[in-house]
Amino acid sequence: MFEVIGERINTSRKFVQAAVAERNSDYIIDDVKKQQEAGADFIDVNAGARIGHETEDMKWLLDTIQPIATIPLTLDSPDPAVLEMAFKRVKTTPMINSISLEKERFNAMMPFLEGKECKVIALCMDDAGMPASSDDILGRAKNLVKELNRIGIPTASIYVDPLVQPISVESTKGIMVLNAIRAIKTEFPEVHITGGLSNISYGLPQRKIINRTFVSLMMAAGMDSAIIDPLDSKIMGAIRTADMLLGNDDYCMNYLKGVRSGAIES
Amino acid sequence: MFEVIGERINTSRKFVQAAVAERNSDYIIDDVKKQQEAGADFIDVNAGARIGHETEDMKWLLDTIQPIATIPLTLDSPDPAVLEMAFKRVKTTPMINSISLEKERFNAMMPFLEGKECKVIALCMDDAGMPASSDDILGRAKNLVKELNRIGIPTASIYVDPLVQPISVESTKGIMVLNAIRAIKTEFPEVHITGGLSNISYGLPQRKIINRTFVSLMMAAGMDSAIIDPLDSKIMGAIRTADMLLGNDDYCMNYLKGVRSGAIES
Repeated sequence: MFEVIGERINTSRKFVQAAVAERNSDYIIDDVKKQQEAGADFIDVNAGARIGHETEDMKWLLDTIQPIATIPLTLDSPDPAVLEMAFKRVKTTPMINSISLEKERFNAMMPFLEGKECKVIALCMDDAGMPASSDDILGRAKNLVKELNRIGIPTASIYVDPLVQPISVESTKGIMVLNAIRAIKTEFPEVHITGGLSNISYGLPQRKIINRTFVSLMMAAGMDSAIIDPLDSKIMGAIRTADMLLGNDDYCMNYLKGVRSGAIES
Repeated sequence: MFEVIGERINTSRKFVQAAVAERNSDYIIDDVKKQQEAGADFIDVNAGARIGHETEDMKWLLDTIQPIATIPLTLDSPDPAVLEMAFKRVKTTPMINSISLEKERFNAMMPFLEGKECKVIALCMDDAGMPASSDDILGRAKNLVKELNRIGIPTASIYVDPLVQPISVESTKGIMVLNAIRAIKTEFPEVHITGGLSNISYGLPQRKIINRTFVSLMMAAGMDSAIIDPLDSKIMGAIRTADMLLGNDDYCMNYLKGVRSGAIES
């Protein structure tokens, strides 16, 4: 089954930032409930945008969301101290967003993750920057899996993000990621592949059709999770449809459910 | 480059049948021009629906279309006598639609095709019916390529149709065709893969999103042609977008052209 990580609770989004600043819990609760109803499998919580307030904002968000959450949370911060506090407050095994191979981030995250029971998003980013080829992405994924296995995180708990780059920059950027996903899944059948989608369409018009088409291509290559807005019914419809076409929807049950609820339209 | 075979000139379509019955050449000319403007690479011409009139209807259609056609025609009939007449009337190397492994059709088509310079659609159908597995599709494709090569049709002129079947019947019907396409392209890198799409969604609601999503999955597997309605801007948009994402559109030129002409919408 494809897993949707709902990206909406992020203080870089204007209305969320205002709700957090005003401690408007109704707004947050309503948004989380909507994401859950739309089929999210995780709720990402990011409180990084109000500089100097991340710890208290994250704390308040978790205390607000925890009582009504029916699905696990994705704790989204580069700061291990914030994550340590957050980890203690959640009641279900969380997902951590994220570790990368950038030295500073890597060195800060590894001691935090060691011995913890959690899922973790592993970005194929290092100090040289974005990956330059399919092989480069695969090499970084191998490093991340090896290091995380070493500190006790099993491969099946790792969500590799191959880092989608804009196709407007170079026409091979799509196929590069698709080939990398296939190679990573061949090397590690148990690993998950996740990521945001919208970078692919950066700089081009009519971005949504690009994002929607690309998610189905990534799913065909082996991507089984994405960080998206679950209230974007067009992208959710594309995901459910592709999931069905790839053989993951017996008797088309999820597809038909999506159509009946109005979430899938032609 | 992906090739679009425009399916509209078919007497099984109500308005086309009426236009043919009334010898309304304006209607036919207008429709063909629209298909060409929308980016069709071939115009399929099928005059089979008015029983007893196929030869004269095909003749009239070709005489009507030929003067304004800027692209080759796909001559669509199961009758070699009709095809023989049609073949002599066209001015550009045509595509023949179609041969299959069904004995009667196979035996009728082989003498017609022998020694002719043409492209040919080869259906993975035999007297046992529709194929039952990816291996079955691959086996039929191998037979078709071998037999067509033997009578002088080069692999690069063959358009294999793996025969898309409804996913409502069995949840593996999508992945079966995707795996078969990949296997056929591995065996014969030069062969083309084509076909209709709409069978995939037979029996399900909101069929267009299924057809659209499936065409991009088939393109990722190696399909490089389809028999569709070029005036269906949503499916044409999906094809142009997938083509770009698969690395076949330098500088996103075709995609941007499609957006500017209004043919691609989010």
